[in-house]
Parts: sequence; C-alpha cells; structure tokens
Amino acid sequence: MARFFKKRNQTKGAVPGTPVFIGQQKIEETLIHIIDYDAEWLNESDLLDLQALAQYKTMENVTWINLYGLHDVEKIKTMGDIFELHPLIIEDIVNTDQRPKIEEYENCVFCILKMLNFDQTNKMIVAEQLSLVLLDNVLLTFQERPGDFFEPVRERLRKKKGRIRTRGGDYLTYALLDTVADNYVILIEKLGEQIEEIETGILDQITADMLENIKFFKREMIYVRKNLRPVKELVQYLNKAEIKYFDEQTKFFLKDLQDLIYQANDATDTYHDLLSNQLNIYQTHISNRMNDVMKVLTIFAAIFIPLTFIAGIYGTNFEYLPELKYRYAYFIFWGVMIVIAGGMLGFFRHKKWL
Amino acid sequence: MARFFKKRNQTKGAVPGTPVFIGQQKIEETLIHIIDYDAEWLNESDLLDLQALAQYKTMENVTWINLYGLHDVEKIKTMGDIFELHPLIIEDIVNTDQRPKIEEYENCVFCILKMLNFDQTNKMIVAEQLSLVLLDNVLLTFQERPGDFFEPVRERLRKKKGRIRTRGGDYLTYALLDTVADNYVILIEKLGEQIEEIETGILDQITADMLENIKFFKREMIYVRKNLRPVKELVQYLNKAEIKYFDEQTKFFLKDLQDLIYQANDATDTYHDLLSNQLNIYQTHISNRMNDVMKVLTIFAAIFIPLTFIAGIYGTNFEYLPELKYRYAYFIFWGVMIVIAGGMLGFFRHKKWL
Amino acid sequence: MARFFKKRNQTKGAVPGTPVFIGQQKIEETLIHIIDYDAEWLNESDLLDLQALAQYKTMENVTWINLYGLHDVEKIKTMGDIFELHPLIIEDIVNTDQRPKIEEYENCVFCILKMLNFDQTNKMIVAEQLSLVLLDNVLLTFQERPGDFFEPVRERLRKKKGRIRTRGGDYLTYALLDTVADNYVILIEKLGEQIEEIETGILDQITADMLENIKFFKREMIYVRKNLRPVKELVQYLNKAEIKYFDEQTKFFLKDLQDLIYQANDATDTYHDLLSNQLNIYQTHISNRMNDVMKVLTIFAAIFIPLTFIAGIYGTNFEYLPELKYRYAYFIFWGVMIVIAGGMLGFFRHKKWL
Amino acid sequence: MARFFKKRNQTKGAVPGTPVFIGQQKIEETLIHIIDYDAEWLNESDLLDLQALAQYKTMENVTWINLYGLHDVEKIKTMGDIFELHPLIIEDIVNTDQRPKIEEYENCVFCILKMLNFDQTNKMIVAEQLSLVLLDNVLLTFQERPGDFFEPVRERLRKKKGRIRTRGGDYLTYALLDTVADNYVILIEKLGEQIEEIETGILDQITADMLENIKFFKREMIYVRKNLRPVKELVQYLNKAEIKYFDEQTKFFLKDLQDLIYQANDATDTYHDLLSNQLNIYQTHISNRMNDVMKVLTIFAAIFIPLTFIAGIYGTNFEYLPELKYRYAYFIFWGVMIVIAGGMLGFFRHKKWL
Amino acid sequence: MARFFKKRNQTKGAVPGTPVFIGQQKIEETLIHIIDYDAEWLNESDLLDLQALAQYKTMENVTWINLYGLHDVEKIKTMGDIFELHPLIIEDIVNTDQRPKIEEYENCVFCILKMLNFDQTNKMIVAEQLSLVLLDNVLLTFQERPGDFFEPVRERLRKKKGRIRTRGGDYLTYALLDTVADNYVILIEKLGEQIEEIETGILDQITADMLENIKFFKREMIYVRKNLRPVKELVQYLNKAEIKYFDEQTKFFLKDLQDLIYQANDATDTYHDLLSNQLNIYQTHISNRMNDVMKVLTIFAAIFIPLTFIAGIYGTNFEYLPELKYRYAYFIFWGVMIVIAGGMLGFFRHKKWL
Repeated sequence: MARFFKKRNQTKGAVPGTPVFIGQQKIEETLIHIIDYDAEWLNESDLLDLQALAQYKTMENVTWINLYGLHDVEKIKTMGDIFELHPLIIEDIVNTDQRPKIEEYENCVFCILKMLNFDQTNKMIVAEQLSLVLLDNVLLTFQERPGDFFEPVRERLRKKKGRIRTRGGDYLTYALLDTVADNYVILIEKLGEQIEEIETGILDQITADMLENIKFFKREMIYVRKNLRPVKELVQYLNKAEIKYFDEQTKFFLKDLQDLIYQANDATDTYHDLLSNQLNIYQTHISNRMNDVMKVLTIFAAIFIPLTFIAGIYGTNFEYLPELKYRYAYFIFWGVMIVIAGGMLGFFRHKKWL
Repeated sequence: MARFFKKRNQTKGAVPGTPVFIGQQKIEETLIHIIDYDAEWLNESDLLDLQALAQYKTMENVTWINLYGLHDVEKIKTMGDIFELHPLIIEDIVNTDQRPKIEEYENCVFCILKMLNFDQTNKMIVAEQLSLVLLDNVLLTFQERPGDFFEPVRERLRKKKGRIRTRGGDYLTYALLDTVADNYVILIEKLGEQIEEIETGILDQITADMLENIKFFKREMIYVRKNLRPVKELVQYLNKAEIKYFDEQTKFFLKDLQDLIYQANDATDTYHDLLSNQLNIYQTHISNRMNDVMKVLTIFAAIFIPLTFIAGIYGTNFEYLPELKYRYAYFIFWGVMIVIAGGMLGFFRHKKWL
Repeated sequence: MARFFKKRNQTKGAVPGTPVFIGQQKIEETLIHIIDYDAEWLNESDLLDLQALAQYKTMENVTWINLYGLHDVEKIKTMGDIFELHPLIIEDIVNTDQRPKIEEYENCVFCILKMLNFDQTNKMIVAEQLSLVLLDNVLLTFQERPGDFFEPVRERLRKKKGRIRTRGGDYLTYALLDTVADNYVILIEKLGEQIEEIETGILDQITADMLENIKFFKREMIYVRKNLRPVKELVQYLNKAEIKYFDEQTKFFLKDLQDLIYQANDATDTYHDLLSNQLNIYQTHISNRMNDVMKVLTIFAAIFIPLTFIAGIYGTNFEYLPELKYRYAYFIFWGVMIVIAGGMLGFFRHKKWL
Repeated sequence: MARFFKKRNQTKGAVPGTPVFIGQQKIEETLIHIIDYDAEWLNESDLLDLQALAQYKTMENVTWINLYGLHDVEKIKTMGDIFELHPLIIEDIVNTDQRPKIEEYENCVFCILKMLNFDQTNKMIVAEQLSLVLLDNVLLTFQERPGDFFEPVRERLRKKKGRIRTRGGDYLTYALLDTVADNYVILIEKLGEQIEEIETGILDQITADMLENIKFFKREMIYVRKNLRPVKELVQYLNKAEIKYFDEQTKFFLKDLQDLIYQANDATDTYHDLLSNQLNIYQTHISNRMNDVMKVLTIFAAIFIPLTFIAGIYGTNFEYLPELKYRYAYFIFWGVMIVIAGGMLGFFRHKKWL
Repeated sequence: MARFFKKRNQTKGAVPGTPVFIGQQKIEETLIHIIDYDAEWLNESDLLDLQALAQYKTMENVTWINLYGLHDVEKIKTMGDIFELHPLIIEDIVNTDQRPKIEEYENCVFCILKMLNFDQTNKMIVAEQLSLVLLDNVLLTFQERPGDFFEPVRERLRKKKGRIRTRGGDYLTYALLDTVADNYVILIEKLGEQIEEIETGILDQITADMLENIKFFKREMIYVRKNLRPVKELVQYLNKAEIKYFDEQTKFFLKDLQDLIYQANDATDTYHDLLSNQLNIYQTHISNRMNDVMKVLTIFAAIFIPLTFIAGIYGTNFEYLPELKYRYAYFIFWGVMIVIAGGMLGFFRHKKWL
C-alpha cells in the first residue's frame, strides 16, 4: 500500500465539495468529546446527540469539540451544517491525504496538518491527519482515531495550569499546534540520535545492516520532510496574515511556534545531508575495501602462478629434458623460484601495495 | 519519435498567428459536441453546421462547446472567427506541443494544459492537450481525440448533481480543471504505489528488472513533472489575478484546485527523491555484493594457489629430489599444506573477510 | 579553441566604448541589405554608400537595415554615428562574445542574442551573434555572416503575407526574435529525439559509443543552456517593461514569444535531467555487468582450483604415497571431485549467484 | 548522544512559556557577574542577592549582567520577573537547543546564538548557547558555563580602549556579537587550513585516514553550517529592522558584522564544495588504482595460465603421447611458450595496458 | 597555508574599527602615487610627505591617490584621518581577507574587490585585494603590491584617450572596476580553453594526469567563484542604488560593467558544470575499462582453468588409471579439450563478452 500518497480513485469525477472518506477506518464508531470552559468553570462530556452541538455556537465560553473517526461522513456533514462550514472544508476533513495547509473562510479559520508517530509494528513513521476549525468561540478538531498527544493540554485545562483557561479559542488552537510541533521535534530527535550513531560506526564495519539502516532513515526523513515542509508555509501564514480570530497576545506564541517548525525543518535537512554524506563515505569505503581484496588476490596470483608454471615445466615427461639430470637442479630450481617471489614482493612493495 | 518535445519543423518561418497543426491526427473527422444549459433546462447535441455556433454568443444560458480532433485547422479557424478569438489563440490550440499556461485576452480567458494517461500498449505516459477558452457565457474546449475524463462532469450536468447547473461558465471551467487535476493525482498515485514496492525489494534481490524499473519510473516522473510544473504557475495565476470571468463564489474552489496541484507537485518531487535514493542504494548494494564475490574468489585463490604450487614442486621429475624418498614425506607434505591453509583462514578471519 | 568563452585578450585595458572586433571573420567584405516598406510599397536594395543611410532616419515608413560581417569596425562606427547610437552599443555589436541582453537607451532599444546552428562538419552547435537596434522607424540588425533564418520573414514582407507590412518596426523586431526562438525549439527538438533514442537502448548494450553520445549531448545541452538562459530574462523584460517603441498590439505576440522561450528552457532542463539519469543508469548497469563477469570468474575458479589442487597431489612423485596403489583409488578420486564440485554449485546456488 | 539535535522529551506537553532546562549541566552553581559603567566610572562585582538586580533597571549608566549556568531555572525566572521579561524568553534561554534568532519584544530585544568551540577531548566542534537580552540600559547575557570569548571585551571596558565606554548597551551588544562572529571565522579558518592540506595529498596516497578525514571535516562543516545559517537571517534583521534600542552610530558596525557573518557562510559553503569535490576525486582515484591492480592480475593470469596448461599437457602420463619422444620437443615446447607469452605481451601493449 | 581563507587569529577580541594588518607583506615600503588632472592639465608624482595630501581635498580637479603596500597601518590610518574616513573603512582596507562589497558612507563610497592573477610559480590563482574610496573629487585606491592592471588606464589619462579626462572621479572608478572585470574574463577564458581541451581527450586516454587536471581546474573554479560571486551583488548595488557620487552619464557604463560580471559568473558556472560532467564521464569510462579488463581475465581463466584441471587428472600417478592405456587416449583428450574451449568461447560470445 502506498504510504507516501493515498488512494483516491473513488473520488474521480465526484462533485467538488462532496465529502468522500479517503483513508483507512481506524475506529469502529465515531466519538465526539467536548470540553467547555471559561476561567472559572469547566465541563467535560462525550456527545451523544449531534443536534445538541448547536447550543455551543452562541455560548460565551470556549468550547473544544474533538471528533475521532472520519469514516462516518454523514455525521461530519451534519456537524458542518450546524456550524455552517463551507462544503470544501468537510470534503478536506474526511480525505486523509490532504496537504498541510491553512485557509481563512468567512466564518472560520481552517487548518490541516499531520501528526507523525513511529509505528513500532511496521517499523515506519505513520501520519495521522488532524483538522482544526476555529470559529468564534468554538474549536472543532477532527482526528482519525482515539488516543492523541493532547492529553497534557486537557490536563492543563482541567488543572488551570498556565494561562490556557483565561485565554480564548485562539490560544487553545495554538496549544494544540504547539503540541504537534513538539512531537515533530521529539520524533526527529529520536531518529537523529540513531543516525548520528551510524556515523560513528561507518568506517569500522561494512555490513548489509548499515546499508539497510541508511536506506531506512533516508526514506523516513523524506517522509517526514514531505509532511513537514508545508507546515512551514502554514506557520508563516499564521504569523504574517492578520487573522481576525487570533488575539494580539497570542502573537508571541505563534512566533515561537514558527521557530519550532523552522528548527524541525532545519534538522530534517541536516540529517538528510548527513545521510547522503554517510552513503557516499560508505560507498567509498567499500571501494577501498575491494581494492584491498583485489590486492591480496593479485599478490598471491602474481607470485604463485609463475612459480606453479615453472614447477609445471619440470613436471613434464619429455624424454630429453636436460635440466632434470643435473645434480643440483632441484636446488637451483628452488633458488630461481625464491628469486622470482622476492622480485615480485619487491615490485609490489615499490607499488606500495604491501 | 520524441515524446518529450514534438516536431515543429513545419512551422519554421510561418507568419506568427498562422495556425498550423502540430501533432498526430488521432481522429478521422472533427466532432463538435454542445451542451447548453441553465438551472432549469439542458440541451445536448452534436453540431453539424459551424455557422450555427454564432447563436450561442448572445444567449443568456451557459454553453459548453467541446471539439475533438485538431487537424482540421480551417474549422477551428472559422470557430475562432465566430467568437472573435485572437489569431494567437487559434495557433496555440492546434499546436499540441504547447506549454501549459493561462492568458487573459480582452474578450476571453485562454488556458492550455495536458491530460496525462498511461498508455498500456506502449507502456508510457502520454499527454493529450486540452485547450479551454472561457468567453462570457460560453466555454470552448478543444481535445485531440474523443474519449475523455469529463463524462462524470456531463453526468452531473444532466442529473443536476451538485451546484454545477446553477453556476456560470467559470464554475464549469473549474469543474473541468479539477477533473484534470484529479487525474494527475490518480496517475501519480498509481506510479507511486509501484515505486514504493520497489523500495521494499531493493535489498533482497539484484535483478536487471529492478534497474529497468527504476529507469522507467524516473523517466516517467520526469515526464510528469515537465507537464505538471507549469500548471502550478497556472493555478497560482488563477488564484492571484482578479480574472473578471471568475465569480467570487468560485474563489474557494480555485484555492482547493491549487492545493490539489501543489500536492501533485510535492508527490512528484518526493517520488523523484525516493527513486534517486533507490538508485544510490542499489548501486551501493551492487558494490557490496561484488565485494562478497571478490572475497570468495580471493579466499579460494589465496588458499589453493600456494598449495597447488607445492604439489607442483613434488610433481617435478628432477632426478635428485631428496624429499621424495623420505618415508613420511607424503604425510609431512599434507601437514605443511594443512598448516598453510589454516594460516590463510586465520589471516582472512583476522581481516574479517570470513 | 574555446567555444564556450571567446578570446578577448586584445581588449584588455582599452577605453570602454571603443569598438574592437572580437571573434572570427566569417565574410570577406561587409554587406548591407536594406528593405524599406509600408503597407503599399516595398523597396529592397544593397547599400553601397554608407552616407545614404541618413535619409532613412526621417522617413515615415519602416526600414530594415541588415549588416553582415562585423570585422569592419569603422563602417559600423560610421553607422552608429549616423543613427547617433551610444558608443557602448557599437562596442557590444562587434564583440561576438556578448551575453544575450536587452537595454533601453534614450533613442533606441538594443538587444543582443545568439542564433544557434548545428555545424555538421565539426559536429557541434555553433552560435552566431545577432544584434538588433530598434530606433523609431528603423530597425538595424547585425549578423556575423550572410545566410540566416530570416528569408521567410523577407518573403512575408515581399508577398504581404500576414500583418507584417501594416505594422511598424516593433512588429518586425518581434518577427525576427520569433524566428530565432523557433530555431531554438527546432534545434532542441532535433537533439532531443536522439537523446530519447539513447534512452531506449541503454540497457541492451554497453558500448563506448553510448558513453560518447551521453557526453556529447550533455555538453551540447550545457552549451544551449548557456545561450538560452539569458534570453529568458530578455523576454521577461520585453513583457514587463513598458518599452515605448513597442505597440500595445504587439503585446500578445511578445507574450507568445515568452512562452516559446520558456518552453525551450524547460525542454533543455528536462533533457539535461534525462541525460544525468541515463549516465547514472548506465553506470549502475556497468556495475551490474561487472558483477556478472566476476561471478562467472569466481564460480569457475572456486570449482576448478581446488580440484586441480587435488589432482596435483596425486601427481606428486612421493615414493611412499599409499592412495596411488588402491585398486579403486582413481574412481574414488573422481567421486571426491564430483562431490566437491557439486557442493560448490550448491553453495553458489544458495548464494543466488547461479 | 545526539549532538545535532538535543533531547527535549521532558518538555512534551508542558505549558508554553514554562521554563524547563534542556541540556547538560556544565557548572555546579549559577554565577552572576555584573559590570556597571559609564564614560567616567566602572564597577565590577559578583552578584549574591538576586533582588539587588532591581536597582539597575532605573540607573542611567550601562549595566552588563552576565549569568553562567542555566540549570537553576528558578533563579533565571526570578531575573525574568525583575526585568519583566516575557515568559517565552525565559523558556528559550534555558532550552539550550534553540535555533539562533532575534526577536523584538515590547520592552527588549532578545537574541540567541551559538558559540562554537573545538573540543580537543572528543575531537568535535561543540556549541554553547548564548542568549542576549537588551533592555534600555541593561544587557543581560546567559551562558552555559564560565569561561568565554569575552575577556577582551571586558578588558576594553576596564581600560577604556576604543569607544566602548562612551557608547550605550547597543554597542556593548554589538561588541559581544562581533566577538562571537570573529570566533566563527577563526574556527572555520582552522578547519579550512586542514581541508586545504588534504587537497594537496589526495592523489599521492590512498589511505583510510584520508577517508576518515574527509568524513570528519564534512560532518563538522555540516554542523557549523547548521549553527551559522540562521545567524545570517539574524544579522540581516539587525540591519534592516529599525530596532529602537540600536543607535544610528552603531549602524555601520552592524553592517560590518553582517559582512563577517556572510563571509563565514561563504567560506563554509566553499569548504563544503571542496570536500565534496575531494571525495569525488578520491573515489575516482580508487577506481583508477583498482584498474591498475586488475590489469596486473589479468596480465599475469593471461600469460601464465595458458602456459601452465601447456606444461600440464606434457605432464600427463598417457602411454602414447608422441611429442614426448621427439629429440627437440622440449626446446620446441619452450619456443611455443615464448611465442605465446610474447603474443600476449603484444596484445596487452596494443590495448595500452602496459 | 590556507588560500581560501586567511589567518585572522591576531584580531581576536580587538576593538572593532582598530586597523590590524592581515595578510602577507608583499612590498618593503609603502608607496603612494598621485595623478591629479582635469581636461587641460595632468600632474603625476610620488608622494613623500603624507600631510601634503590635505591639499587635494579642496581642489576642483580630479585626484587619484594610489597606495601600494598595506602593512604600514599607521600611514593608512593617517590618510584616513586626513580624508575623515570612518575607522571601519581603514580596518577593512588593511585586512586582506575581506569579502568583496560596496558601502555608502556619509562622505564617501567604499568598495572592496579582488584582482585575480595566475601565479605561474605556485600554479594557482592568487587574489590581491583592491580597495577604492571615492570621495567628492578624490579617488583613493589601495593595493597590496606594486604592479597592477591599471597601466592602460594611466596611459589613457596621460594621452587624453577617450572621455576619461573630461569626466569626474566616478568615471575613473568605473574605468578601474572595468579593468578588473576585464581581467576576470581573460583569466576565466584562459582556464576555459584548457578545460575544453580536456573534454576532447577524455575518452581516448585514462591517465592520472587527467584526474589531476580535473581536480586542479575544479578547485581553481571554486576559488574564482568564491571571489566573483559577491562582485555580482556589488555591481547590482552600483546599478540600483542611486549613489550620489555617480553621474547620470556614467550609468550606461555601469550597466555594461554589470553585463561583464554576469557573463564572467555565467562562464564560471558553465565550466563548473562541464568539469563535473567530465569527472562523471571519466569515472564511468574507468568502470567501462575495468569491465574490459575483467572480461579478458575471466575468459582466460574460464577457458584454461578447466583444461588445466583435466590435464592435471591425467598427470596423476594412480596405478590403475584405465584411460592412460588407450591407444588414442591422447587425441581424445585433445578433442575433449578443444570441445570444452569451443563451448566456452561460444558461451562468451552468446553473452556478448567477445
């Protein structure tokens, strides 16, 4: 199955704005979890009746509505209708192969990005799509499956840690984006550590493992870069565009987020360079080793093949072969061979092969 | 025949704006198919009399005039005259080697791009040129041959699916461009799946097939990129320039189209990187294997060549060769050889060749 | 002789604006050919008296003054004086190693570019410099030698084909530039066809020819690119800058010219990529083949060298060598050798070398 | 341990703006050193009571407060509170894996960069983070450990050398940045000298050392570049943005600083290119040498293997082997062998292998 | 000694703006040469008393003060004081490792660039630093040693050639810059000619020389590029910025200078590409040759090793070896060997190795 680019055959020719689920279903039933809070008050619940969502539109306090499971397109469409979202937003949310991006609509800001995770089973990084829709006081988030990086944010909300409870939905949005960015950095750091380890061993051993590792990390770095590059544009836009939903106070935090993403991008590029360099060094090292192997072969062959030939001559059964009869022939024969072998060794030493 | 760049010898020195057909004739006779519609009403017909086209110019409802077959230059020129198109537009339409582009003229928007298809017979991607001319309420499209990706759009028109019947020619234009972009994505995804499969197998087997595959996909990726890159500029222009024929409502759809094209471009670049990486890994892997082969050769040669030489010595027919007469000479001879062979094996183990 | 960069030793330290001929003299005597026309009237002549040029300055109709042969610096200087050209223009015209460029002066537009031709004798692309000076109603062109691509333009002038006779000097300028651009495209297409042919054969044969071809086309592509890249800037300037000598009506034609040049640049880059790819594939293919060669060698050596050694042992003349006397020794000897050979074959099959 | 990217697992999910120390503790207790000066007067002391810092906020003269050791987060937080620094500044200061950057806050300019040092023990470049906060008349600097490049600046302050005592905190900031930049240049120069030495030896010897060296310098150059690139943006910002804390008089010095950083970046890129080139040359040189080795092997094998074969034939014990009985057979045998050997030598000379 | 980057250890921690001589002393005593002129009048002298310089500040005519030898920092500092130059200018002038740049100060324009020369003794390009300071009517130039490219400019001044005597200091500045640029072009052309010669021979011979040459030219091209790239920015600035000291009339000449520099940069890049290409071709060619060598070895080995083995069998001394006794055994033996050899040859022909 293609990981870098997902199947979308089924949408061919569909009406633009028609939501069609693209991806793997990762949860049986769609779950909706709601946190409703202001500085004094917090309420947390799982939503059962979709229509109950309408009440949050007009409330003063901040509401974070988080949905897990994108396969139930109808449910998401209904949510879209309740919050008057543009059909294209809904289409993008359920298509899990979107490019990270940010878009301003008349009544909301819409943002898509990828959460990256190392899948221990398949030994590869997998991406899960996260969509955020920030309306006035409501933040809608959409994930593919339950279990996310956001538990610490929920804890901060529950325990009034930091300034999160006193700020609006924009700060909550920032907090989530920051958590995702933090995870990029942690993931890259984990890979990077292993890449730097390869570096150390590269001239000591030539193993198929090493090549396998370089290949593996290079592919994963390409995968990370594919998902990370567009996020750079996203945070640049967040910082440059004067998005009305974002408060002046949140500005410095967005700048900080941008630094984090820039740093992650830098690190990806650096590791990419390091890996290319490692592959080059490894290749050269193999050539070096092959040279050594060839030299050993050549030295052995060049010394012993002529000697064997000479021995062969005196192993012939010619009736008239004068040398065979000399008293010291055998010793002369040895002498000649030692001279030849010595000459060869001298020749190879001269060539610096020894 | 050159696929990347087509013959245009025949136009050398022609008057600019003189339409000359460049390409392969892919249909015997030019066909013109018309769909005329508004929200309530739709009429579909094949055009026989070219002059009848003039009536559509002043009609209120939207008309989509689609022509298949570009070799009949005269017919296209007549159409151009009827709709008062600039001679350069006509010249570009019949030259099937145009670079994708968009141009605003006084009375129309003109847009050229490529439809990409995988030709199963010749095992390569082939491009068909699509030209679109959007006048006030009329959309002219020009294709090289019948059979296109647009049947679903026609179905949506016929069955009033989505918003297409209630919008103008600009939305129809978008719908067609979106269909073409969707097809880029599908094509790249199909190639990508196979490229990712190569990835898996690359260290298990060294076959000429694998090299053939890498070569094939790299060339096709270069071909896709050549046709796709300029489309990026095209959609950027569509989104930035305030083209008068495009409605405010269509704006979000054009943004969505841009995302699709960006994503397709990203994917092409990513696959290009992956393939380059694969070729590098493959090359290194071959060197690794050659090293193995050489080691086996060298070990065999270095052990047996000296031994054969020693056997050769005692195969000589020297009359006076004292060792031959010793009672245990033969066993000492074996002993010496075993010591030498053992020494060699130790040496190679020390060198980590074993 | 350097083709990529021409000798200019002789100008070292000369006064800037001093015209010094740099290049090869390609014609014995400078020729000046004049076409003088308006919509009704055309006159064609060869100029003999240089001073007669002055009359064209004030005439209402369009005059195209074309000079062949740049070695006669004095003549060109006189022409410059007559038309009041800046000394730097004259200096640039007679220096045939100028970079393509466009410059606006107070009384004229000055443009330099290269006409590329495949020289069949020396099997390489050669560049001829073309300078154009557009004054109000007069177009001066300067070429290195007679014989050019412009005969079809002259025919169009003579036969009133197209709109060329009814437009001014700006359109004539465009017509010439367009002809040059057309020739780039034709040249690249001719090379491209051969490059794509290499592509097909690359895995079937390893010949020094193929390497020679890749080298040849890569060098020529670098040469084309060197001459073509600056032309991109030139046409961008033509389209962006509001040059007073260029009519509003000519605007669309200049846009068309830009497309042509962009396409030629794209094609050059694409072919450059294809060639790099081909070289990589070719290199890998050679490694693959060498691997095959080495395997054959190793298999033969690893099987027969030990066997020969065994035969050698029983070829020794030790007096006491018990095996020689056994009745079935010879057959056991064969048996052992067959077992060894079989074992080796099994080993190599296990290693997938067979 | 990862050098290119540091552990930040512990911050996962922390409240943004919460200072968490990331890095290695390099000093036991945090030290604060203060230099307080104006043109006439200078006082230098080590701070014991943190609250005493408040007094410097309102003083007229310039105060440089330098802190060594970032692990004591509480102390730094208290300092931040005293000088009313934004929580994000404190968070960045104690996280030693920040990307070099400059940020303007309402009451200060905040700047982070890396001091690079060659660690003789571990044979690698190590980076120490330097944070600068410029308030009105106070400059706060934060370093990871005692011992820095700034002693000469302190000397200039103490001895009134140059203009440093008569200028404000902005000039002091510049002086420190300039010292850091100077150190980049010195470091790169030291590496560069060794890189240029490799260059000289590259075709004389093929040693594993050389490969080890190339690998080492390439990795270090990648490391320097990673830390230096963002500084380019930093100084560009310093020069372009009209930062209120920077005096008009300091402008030329900032331009000079920019030149220094540009030059260091240029040099890094140049050395990177040189190293890539060296690796390529080295690789080709190895191939060349292997070719030589193979030729020697092939020449020996091709000459002696056939000869040994012929000798083998006449070593067979066939009862009826007519040649053995001829009187001059042995000499003819020698003659044939000499002819074959000569022919082979001729063949190889013809192939230019000799 | 590092050529790409010069020692500056000694300036570590110096007061910014403190002039410290960095470089090699190339002349024993500093020389100052003055040319004072206007359209009618020219005076040329060597300056002895530094204080006499003050008089030129207020004179109406143009004065060119040229200093050779930068080690006498005090003298240069005095000159700086007389003409009221910013201390940073003086610091830059005596530091011969400056990056080419242009800077506008309140009372002058300051420009630094490199004169490149091929040093025949050390077989490498060496750079000499040239600093220009253009005050109102005075041009100060600083060079490292006597002997420069500017003699022709002085001749033009003395002999009133061209417009140089009638223009101001800005034109003189241009004339010097133009001379330096001309020298870049001549140098690159000289290298280029040799690079193109390599191109021709690359497939005919494989010599260590060729590799040595490629290495040499690549390094020199990297060196030229390092010194030339920043000059591009310099001339762009000269053309874009409205520098008050530069007259409107000089504008076209500056544009011409820019073209020259662009062309030199283009040529450097083109030659860099050509050399990379050559190295690739050369590498592939070596692989090709090695393939040939290996084939010869393998063919010989694969044919003769089995034959030798067979001969070995019949050289054994088994008492009971039935074949030895057959009458025609020897001829059958030959027959078998010929069949085997023939089969091998057929096999290799089938594999296209022959």
